[in-house]
Amino acid sequence: MGEVKAAAAKNHAFRRALERMVGPSGVLSSPEDRLCYSFDATTISSVPALVVLPKTTEQVSAVAALAQREGIPVVPRGAGTGFAGSCVPGEDAIALSTERMNRMLSFSPADLRCVVEPGVVNGDLQRYLAGERLFYPPDPSSLEACTLGGNVAQGASGPRALKYGSTKDYVTYLKVVAPDGEVWETRQESRGYDLLSVLVGSEGTLGVFTAIGLRLLPLPTHWRTFLAHFGGLEEASEAVVALSSRGVIPTVLEVMDKVTLRCVEDYLGRPSHDAVGAVLFVEVTGGEEEVKVLSDRIVGIFEEIKSWQFEFATNEEERESLWLLRRSVSPALARVAPTKINEDVCVPRSRLPELMRTVEALAQKHRVRIYTFGHIGDGNLHVNLMTDVRDREEVARVEECADELFRVTLDLGGTISGEHGIGLSKAKYLPLELGPAGMKVLAGVKRAFDPKGLLNPGKIIASRPQDNSTRR
Amino acid sequence: MGEVKAAAAKNHAFRRALERMVGPSGVLSSPEDRLCYSFDATTISSVPALVVLPKTTEQVSAVAALAQREGIPVVPRGAGTGFAGSCVPGEDAIALSTERMNRMLSFSPADLRCVVEPGVVNGDLQRYLAGERLFYPPDPSSLEACTLGGNVAQGASGPRALKYGSTKDYVTYLKVVAPDGEVWETRQESRGYDLLSVLVGSEGTLGVFTAIGLRLLPLPTHWRTFLAHFGGLEEASEAVVALSSRGVIPTVLEVMDKVTLRCVEDYLGRPSHDAVGAVLFVEVTGGEEEVKVLSDRIVGIFEEIKSWQFEFATNEEERESLWLLRRSVSPALARVAPTKINEDVCVPRSRLPELMRTVEALAQKHRVRIYTFGHIGDGNLHVNLMTDVRDREEVARVEECADELFRVTLDLGGTISGEHGIGLSKAKYLPLELGPAGMKVLAGVKRAFDPKGLLNPGKIIASRPQDNSTRR
Repeated sequence: MGEVKAAAAKNHAFRRALERMVGPSGVLSSPEDRLCYSFDATTISSVPALVVLPKTTEQVSAVAALAQREGIPVVPRGAGTGFAGSCVPGEDAIALSTERMNRMLSFSPADLRCVVEPGVVNGDLQRYLAGERLFYPPDPSSLEACTLGGNVAQGASGPRALKYGSTKDYVTYLKVVAPDGEVWETRQESRGYDLLSVLVGSEGTLGVFTAIGLRLLPLPTHWRTFLAHFGGLEEASEAVVALSSRGVIPTVLEVMDKVTLRCVEDYLGRPSHDAVGAVLFVEVTGGEEEVKVLSDRIVGIFEEIKSWQFEFATNEEERESLWLLRRSVSPALARVAPTKINEDVCVPRSRLPELMRTVEALAQKHRVRIYTFGHIGDGNLHVNLMTDVRDREEVARVEECADELFRVTLDLGGTISGEHGIGLSKAKYLPLELGPAGMKVLAGVKRAFDPKGLLNPGKIIASRPQDNSTRR
Repeated sequence: MGEVKAAAAKNHAFRRALERMVGPSGVLSSPEDRLCYSFDATTISSVPALVVLPKTTEQVSAVAALAQREGIPVVPRGAGTGFAGSCVPGEDAIALSTERMNRMLSFSPADLRCVVEPGVVNGDLQRYLAGERLFYPPDPSSLEACTLGGNVAQGASGPRALKYGSTKDYVTYLKVVAPDGEVWETRQESRGYDLLSVLVGSEGTLGVFTAIGLRLLPLPTHWRTFLAHFGGLEEASEAVVALSSRGVIPTVLEVMDKVTLRCVEDYLGRPSHDAVGAVLFVEVTGGEEEVKVLSDRIVGIFEEIKSWQFEFATNEEERESLWLLRRSVSPALARVAPTKINEDVCVPRSRLPELMRTVEALAQKHRVRIYTFGHIGDGNLHVNLMTDVRDREEVARVEECADELFRVTLDLGGTISGEHGIGLSKAKYLPLELGPAGMKVLAGVKRAFDPKGLLNPGKIIASRPQDNSTRR
């Protein structure tokens, strides 16, 4: 079945029809070109039958309508920086990349709003807005590459989500191309059921976004950024609970365990913190007085929990340097082992110390190298299991370990994905979290948006094994 | 058809089966009792066949399962303070009131979370939390009566939504009884599609909530509360645009026009502000310095826009007195005319002056008495068309006026309901806002949750005229 469809997609007449819609340069069919659209930041990959690069809503609509008529799956794609396989196309599918749709469509400072095309890079938007003394809070660590279309599809988060919330809290409007090519719109203010929130985080399975309205905020005038040293992960997480239980919420509160910290320091060529078991990376932003009061309070609480040293950024350059440490974690870890399974589990903050103990115990039990960092202020940890896909025996242990981690997380009242999404990599675990009743409603929602099931099939809701043509 | 079903619901064996589930005192069948559950705060009403008052999730589940087997509609109900007819039951339906489910199930200050049953009254929760130096931001003006179940069903908002957002931003967990009685759960952190956000604001059409998890915030330590006088609505709305375009966001920013202000002053027996054309009611909350800086800035901007006088609350009693003025608007207006059509239109803030001019023009054109107040800081106005349902000629003019108001609002990029919901009263207008593609998805979502269409039928998605048994 997959092969028949792949043949259909590669059919000459079909390709010519696409070329008439998006121009000859908008259809890529060579093996080398298609390979570039076969993966994301996971270890999953699969080469699509064709790649299309539309420039307008009308082009996206025409491509979707044609593919639907021909029964060919369409898999939308941003920059491919995701951690769940959500944009990995099936071999029978068209990969639809929004990279050529990268304009700002409108900007209304009086309403604190802008509308962008999906291919705009998050970091480019941030720089533009900073010039206007505004900002867009969601800041995934891949912000120099990832696009807003991908951010919306994945419901992306980032360090600042602790204070400001995630993508979901900032999308005010979406123009959507339905799987059959119909174009429709929905707004934050739209009544009836909240379709906008369903689309945010839908991982490209319900519609293709061609215009995205965003809420903006005034750029804070002051900041204080520092690292606090702790003896280990458990103490660091106790410090987080202490802040949270007193209602003290900084803008950013990130953790790195000892091995992650050393790995990043090594990657950046910085001297290492040998005696440090874990660090918390803190940023407080706001008005001058507010920043001073809040950061002094945080330091005081940390000192009670035995943090013995603080490194404060004293100027913009030192602040950037601390941020670079945090943002370099992913590339740094890539050097430790060929394969990194990044499991972004999330628990209520009060359960963090328990989760930390579990992670350590699981690492020992399964003999797996684990690097832990992430948005601890939200209870959202990135537990990275390091391995090499070629080492089958180790991979089996890693998968058992991940499996157990998910079950413990759910027992602690948590979720299997704090921010990265379900995609292909966690689809088999989702029923554990939602139960049969929740999965039934989920499947009904998918049918409501995509009756033929041709838009990004197999993501979130796993395909049955017999027709799982997207997993290799 | 409606009569056949009503007969089924009133059937003796059916009532006995319900009584076995919820106890004899949990089923009300006398005409007087049923009348009490026939209306909300609109002019729409319809007496249900039976009323049930369950105390537990298991009882709600049993009632739903039985009603589904018998093909009898179930209409969930909080305190009946809504403005859209969302909880008005059909004559063939069971009204399911959550009033006996009013316990707090858990309270975790360290996680800034609590879980409550749906019948807990918003104001009771606020008082409890204030004792713990915490608060729950959504504060509908009916907070002394309305329940959290109703708040979640309607996605309720309130004056503080400007700074803090609405109910949607604070619900973290829902235990849901499906229309067939199946019990399931969903959380803010749950992945897959965001079913929680679909349920919030679903007006009792997708499931009955039996436990509600809420996010809480630390109570701000300082406040500054004042009224600012303006020449008229247009100037007041220009002042709002001026704040918004400079990124100055107070906690509360409410407007009252001249007639509303006089009406409330009269109701409360206070001296009237004769020379004032409109007032803005402002509250700033936060840390001491933050409150001082922000409120001084607001006063400065207002003075530029020709506000000539300010009334500051200097102690907690005066602050309460200003809040009482705002919260008394609805009861005060009830004295002006027997029937008040409260249309909560909402536009982007920059379009407010235009909306204000339109409202005045429409009042003259249709010879309708209009009282305007509401959450102007959000662009959300309550435009009250005063009439008497017995005066058919005037009601016809009022409906034409409302119709035109909705169309203008949509032309200005707004929405027909800022916060009150669609229910019965706006169901016929929703297709204007969502278009055919949006309505198709909406109907699909309803089917995904409620395949037989027996939970609160005819709300949000209008019944076709021939089987509209809920509208009289």
